[in-house]
Amino acid sequence: MKDHLISLPTDLVYRVFNLGATSLVGSEYQGQKDVMAATWVCPADYDKMSAVIDSTHFSRKLIEQSGKFALMLPGKGIVKEALTLGSVSKNDNPDKLEQSGAKFFYMDNCPIPFVEGCAAYALFDVIPEPHNEKTYDLFIGKCTAVWADKRILDERGHWNFDESTDHLRTLHYVSGGHFFAIGESMDISLD
Amino acid sequence: MKDHLISLPTDLVYRVFNLGATSLVGSEYQGQKDVMAATWVCPADYDKMSAVIDSTHFSRKLIEQSGKFALMLPGKGIVKEALTLGSVSKNDNPDKLEQSGAKFFYMDNCPIPFVEGCAAYALFDVIPEPHNEKTYDLFIGKCTAVWADKRILDERGHWNFDESTDHLRTLHYVSGGHFFAIGESMDISLD
Repeated sequence: MKDHLISLPTDLVYRVFNLGATSLVGSEYQGQKDVMAATWVCPADYDKMSAVIDSTHFSRKLIEQSGKFALMLPGKGIVKEALTLGSVSKNDNPDKLEQSGAKFFYMDNCPIPFVEGCAAYALFDVIPEPHNEKTYDLFIGKCTAVWADKRILDERGHWNFDESTDHLRTLHYVSGGHFFAIGESMDISLD
Repeated sequence: MKDHLISLPTDLVYRVFNLGATSLVGSEYQGQKDVMAATWVCPADYDKMSAVIDSTHFSRKLIEQSGKFALMLPGKGIVKEALTLGSVSKNDNPDKLEQSGAKFFYMDNCPIPFVEGCAAYALFDVIPEPHNEKTYDLFIGKCTAVWADKRILDERGHWNFDESTDHLRTLHYVSGGHFFAIGESMDISLD
């Protein structure tokens, strides 16, 4: 899995998330781990992301306690696993991760589980903003590392899908199990 | 144009923007009008949206002074107009709107220009958050009205594209004129 990943500069993290795809949010604190899905995730700067993490989620405490979270872009090949990770709460099922059907791997020196089959992965340090967190469940993170699958994303943060990488197309969630995958590429010139 | 629009409940505005598409941001103050593009736009609640509006943009002052903004989802049929509205600043060209190639229309009792060829339109009142606006250029708006093109979005906020509405597929911007349109629809069940 890691063989396909290249590291990008942290100030290109916005390019990875500009497509507006649904993300998986990973977290860990003192051995407790969770991965949930979040659609309300958005660049806040070239090297920062915002994410709405509801106060009821198991992940919320892990993120608050560790001050860290990961964002991943699940590809359409793992849409069912992504929906499961977004539908089942670890509050209700402590074995959520093991039973999700998702496969996990770890990057060096990072205890947060990464899900196989994502287009990209990024790590963030929470920038403490208590008012936003309390009022809007809104967390802002500064990127500390970002990796992308080099088969679809190059060092400049440019995307390119073909038949062999169709399973990595980003997912865009509406509700009730209803998704779209990202589609046709267009390069527009204004001359 | 208006014939195709249906009004949705404001607490379904998140469904309209869940796809994570690039938006057009409309604004008006005392007769001055602007429309810019923004990719860093995201639901913040069922009836709220966040939008990053850089302090250098002409639109920024109009939004700050009026306390209102509109978000629109340009379809792929107006990708060139959307890129133009996002590339040219009214600071540099006062005739930006007239020369953009975009066509405009107005909803009753609203002075903000709406761009023809969008999948959906929504109006917001700014919730004043001076720290976010100053530190992150981040504005949070509460939805006061939302309309969608009924050929592709139904009253429940469910999307459906076909050949006849292909030009309304949402746009997802990367950078440098490089876009994707939203693609294949998938309905996933977890039995």
